[in-house]
Amino acid sequence: MFAYNLDHVAIAVHDLDAALAEYSRLYGSEPLHREVVGEQGVEEAMIAVGGSHVQLLQPLDAESPVGRFLSTRGEGLHHIALAVADIDAALRHLESEGARLIDREPRIGGRGAKIAFVHPKQFAGTLVELVEVVSEGTDD
Amino acid sequence: MFAYNLDHVAIAVHDLDAALAEYSRLYGSEPLHREVVGEQGVEEAMIAVGGSHVQLLQPLDAESPVGRFLSTRGEGLHHIALAVADIDAALRHLESEGARLIDREPRIGGRGAKIAFVHPKQFAGTLVELVEVVSEGTDD
Repeated sequence: MFAYNLDHVAIAVHDLDAALAEYSRLYGSEPLHREVVGEQGVEEAMIAVGGSHVQLLQPLDAESPVGRFLSTRGEGLHHIALAVADIDAALRHLESEGARLIDREPRIGGRGAKIAFVHPKQFAGTLVELVEVVSEGTDD
Repeated sequence: MFAYNLDHVAIAVHDLDAALAEYSRLYGSEPLHREVVGEQGVEEAMIAVGGSHVQLLQPLDAESPVGRFLSTRGEGLHHIALAVADIDAALRHLESEGARLIDREPRIGGRGAKIAFVHPKQFAGTLVELVEVVSEGTDD
């Protein structure tokens, strides 16, 4: 397995405040993290579930990728994110196996992680994000 | 948090053999478990990703819930499953918080687990399954 964890499953929502209030009540859990990621056109929040997370994503505008998803499909599951130890190696592995990469090089996502998206085509219609989480608490 | 793990994220596919071959190659991992669950009208397979799983679901017929999902939405993310220690307590918690239960009582799903589905409405359009995994290796 080239990934060591299911980092998160992401859900597109129209209203992050409302969705977080509902999720916090139903899950009985407060969000761990909330952040605007301007480059991706989203505001996102993470709720911990065991060693994984549910991520709620609200688009910053209707023309962003998540905004277009919401207008086409409505609220619901948007993508899954796989945690990898070495995102460059993971991208090379997937490319060598014929996967179509959306991001050929990693970029910086929420929590300062290196991320890259892979096209849904080879994953049975599922948009896949790779995440190399940068360890916290040290710059070494 | 009423759930202790993200047990799996489920992806609806037209052809389980083809999807498993593609996933096994891309993930570099063989499926852990494969099973026909007649009551739910699916054949399913699990691929381990850290402490969670990706589940691939093929409908047994076009009129099953997953068959109707495929004809409406196409292949892609279908539901998430939360592992709970006590599924009856989890159902009572969700009901008391206003969630709409699809299964008011647990039934038996794949791996012999007790399962119950909760309506997507209160979970921002995401179908949620609760899973109380029965410990393996003992009937006590």
